[in-house]
Amino acid sequence: MIKRALISVSDKTGVVELAIKLYKMGIEIISTGGTAKLLRESGVNALDISQITGFPECLDGRVKTLHPAVHGGILAIRSNESHMKTIKQLNITPIDMVIINLYPFKETILKENTTLDEAIENIDIGGPAMLRSAAKNYRDVTVIIDPNDYEGVIKEIETTGDTTEETRYNLALKVFRHTSHYDAMIANYLGNNIEDTPQTLTLTYEKLQDLRYGENPHQKAIFYKEVGGRIGSLVEGEQLQGKELSFNNINDANGALELLKEFDETTLVAVKHTNPCGVASGKTIFEAFKKVYEADSISIFGGIIAANDTIDGKTAEAMKDIFLEVIIAPDFTQEALEIFKAKKNIRLIKLKDIKASEVKDIDIKKVYGGILIQEKNMALIHKSEIVTKKQPTKQEMEDLVFAYKVVKHMKSNAIAIAKNKQTLALGPGQTARVWALNNAIENCRHDLSGSVLASDAFFPFKDSVELASRAGIKAIIQPGGSLKDQESIDECNEKNISMVFTGIRHFKH
Amino acid sequence: MIKRALISVSDKTGVVELAIKLYKMGIEIISTGGTAKLLRESGVNALDISQITGFPECLDGRVKTLHPAVHGGILAIRSNESHMKTIKQLNITPIDMVIINLYPFKETILKENTTLDEAIENIDIGGPAMLRSAAKNYRDVTVIIDPNDYEGVIKEIETTGDTTEETRYNLALKVFRHTSHYDAMIANYLGNNIEDTPQTLTLTYEKLQDLRYGENPHQKAIFYKEVGGRIGSLVEGEQLQGKELSFNNINDANGALELLKEFDETTLVAVKHTNPCGVASGKTIFEAFKKVYEADSISIFGGIIAANDTIDGKTAEAMKDIFLEVIIAPDFTQEALEIFKAKKNIRLIKLKDIKASEVKDIDIKKVYGGILIQEKNMALIHKSEIVTKKQPTKQEMEDLVFAYKVVKHMKSNAIAIAKNKQTLALGPGQTARVWALNNAIENCRHDLSGSVLASDAFFPFKDSVELASRAGIKAIIQPGGSLKDQESIDECNEKNISMVFTGIRHFKH
Repeated sequence: MIKRALISVSDKTGVVELAIKLYKMGIEIISTGGTAKLLRESGVNALDISQITGFPECLDGRVKTLHPAVHGGILAIRSNESHMKTIKQLNITPIDMVIINLYPFKETILKENTTLDEAIENIDIGGPAMLRSAAKNYRDVTVIIDPNDYEGVIKEIETTGDTTEETRYNLALKVFRHTSHYDAMIANYLGNNIEDTPQTLTLTYEKLQDLRYGENPHQKAIFYKEVGGRIGSLVEGEQLQGKELSFNNINDANGALELLKEFDETTLVAVKHTNPCGVASGKTIFEAFKKVYEADSISIFGGIIAANDTIDGKTAEAMKDIFLEVIIAPDFTQEALEIFKAKKNIRLIKLKDIKASEVKDIDIKKVYGGILIQEKNMALIHKSEIVTKKQPTKQEMEDLVFAYKVVKHMKSNAIAIAKNKQTLALGPGQTARVWALNNAIENCRHDLSGSVLASDAFFPFKDSVELASRAGIKAIIQPGGSLKDQESIDECNEKNISMVFTGIRHFKH
Repeated sequence: MIKRALISVSDKTGVVELAIKLYKMGIEIISTGGTAKLLRESGVNALDISQITGFPECLDGRVKTLHPAVHGGILAIRSNESHMKTIKQLNITPIDMVIINLYPFKETILKENTTLDEAIENIDIGGPAMLRSAAKNYRDVTVIIDPNDYEGVIKEIETTGDTTEETRYNLALKVFRHTSHYDAMIANYLGNNIEDTPQTLTLTYEKLQDLRYGENPHQKAIFYKEVGGRIGSLVEGEQLQGKELSFNNINDANGALELLKEFDETTLVAVKHTNPCGVASGKTIFEAFKKVYEADSISIFGGIIAANDTIDGKTAEAMKDIFLEVIIAPDFTQEALEIFKAKKNIRLIKLKDIKASEVKDIDIKKVYGGILIQEKNMALIHKSEIVTKKQPTKQEMEDLVFAYKVVKHMKSNAIAIAKNKQTLALGPGQTARVWALNNAIENCRHDLSGSVLASDAFFPFKDSVELASRAGIKAIIQPGGSLKDQESIDECNEKNISMVFTGIRHFKH
């Protein structure tokens, strides 16, 4: 039975109503500072914590509850006679319920211009200690950290006279989830995991939404965001229309966004199964979209579009008869929105800072039993070096860089073929490089003469150059670094193809 | 200047040497229970914590340091006159150094047959509170959680008379990393993230190794393992030969392992760029390897092999002249090991429980600004239904299941073609399904007549069946569920192909 509750909250939501209900049940309330004042004003005759500890709140509130009268009262095992005898001798009364939430560390660090000292001052010490004590002793103590749990717990007490052990267990679990999240936020604020390569890595996220299912309907899934979010990321987007994003939508949209962020000029990207199926830059978004559609009008069916400029009416009109899952853009004109209203299933996401990207970020790959973490690939070209007799023209050079940006975001082994800042043929995800090229050529319906080719890694043999030459390709960009580079260079020289080495590989799996 | 240090450690490594050095520098030592006893036996006249608090250690050690005399001594800001005046009035002496490590919660839960009560009892309350107090007040207090830091800190004090603020900051960061890790372990022990879909998700790992680099040489990377590891996972493997595994090795090896775990019979898998390039079952591992090599003798170059039975001398002899990055197997015969000695670069990993796999596991996909988590895909076929007039033969049915296991582990859209439990043609990672099939047929050098085909998702049109028929394929397995299923079924009936629906899709990106 609950006889005594300790209440000390930073977030005052619902706490008065809760305290009144507990008080009316005859439960003694202990409280601290601001919470105590608020409760007394509301007619709850709360005891001050210092009346329990016989010790003043001191050091600007840094020390108030860290006292055996509090922790003994929480931690004593009620069924243990020796424990109960001890606390009686020490004049400690059991505390059966602990209602606490913590100093707003997160809110503090997310405010602009927060100083290190302000952040540090908002690290709660006494709160987590009491929460953890209460959670450890969950068999005897009810601990509430989340105002959303007030109602359920009160109802349970009203109905059964007490909380059930199952409830107390779940509340204790919530505490350890919260304290680990809280301290992970502090650690992430103070240090950088990939730079420091710590012995333990603790990553923490906040739930954005439960998803209908995962990659496949039989897999349960959830979407979590980083604390504070990241500028220009999908989680910052505003959905203007359509059903909720699915797991695969989010994954594909992310692929589209990451690729789009390579471009400053007006560009549009279409993605399917995390691989681009069409990318183009243009003077206008309409032009870019038309080029993307022409690039591969088959794969775009059911695809995801990301554009780095406003979608206008003309573009919306051109898009509306294609089955598209998602369109992401910094904005949509009113006219465009009207047009899409007839296509309720298309999800429209407005993402203002679509070009923004943070340089310091990690990438994660889950493997069975662990994770691989790495710095995100934020580079493109290390040093471009023309290794052939023939030099690429200015236009070819621009197309080479364009294609290299695209191939960087395709699954390896990958080949991208482009012309006039439009992809013409894309060959992703192969176990042999020459197959990636062969597939790209085989599956496209374009004349490739005069186009350029980008490869995400070096050519192990000259076979890819031979094949490229037969397709009419005039310039190649690739990292270089193969033992047999010279064979490929010789083949280029023979076939009058220019080739640029970048010194940087772009595997992506 | 450090005048007083509090030492309370569960892991006693190096603590006596440390305490003696501090003591000889004239630093007063406060300690608790077992640590105090050990220090006194070693000639360090340590004060007992109860002499500081005036309060007995009680409740079987549950309450000993949670006292304002301790926390006021740690938390008082030395440069704050009011703080210093207050603690003086309260008779609290500053504590300048805190050396603590926590109850062995992890070791407890990893022991076999640990009860919930034992686990709970090993949740440290007082330790984290002091660590967090000291870390919060890092400008004034030196906090050490890791015995590996003893030597460096002592050296710094010997050299400069004190610790530097930079050192104290880094030690504080280490504390919050540790406490978040500790509480995340507790939360993970008490609950299941994917089932409960908690509001905050905190994932915690332990470093296994710093990697030379990530997917590409310009990306820094680290390999972390789950706490406690997972049976049958790569992190449990024992490396017998060769250089350290690289980032891509680990990722590929994981792909190979996950696929291999689908099979009970003797099977061998070759993976390149996370996609299988050859899979075969056989009466012996030698036979399985020969079939895998014949399946695609080009892509296997630089690949990763995983086998679910011992590699013997005959198989090693057959493997040794192919450039392979990694071979993973439950064991290697002495003869095999001798043969591989001549090929120092091949990494050999012995993984005893290679077939084992835990059913409850999560998969993670990193997106910019957040993560997607989902239940791992542990299913294969929901309900197999023959939808054509023609029934697959027993042999075809076995091959269909074989091919479906393979296609489940290929990047989508994917097609796998097999015969006699040997892959003949694999088409992974395409934006259009018919391309995956076309690529598979185009790139292979096998006669496909009489073979079977598996598709990871349904056919949107009948074009894939037409293409399959031309290649001589006799049976197809796929999830079904397209609006145009009937067209594909009709096409199969016309071409005398049997088709099985599984009711379960296997996208993998």
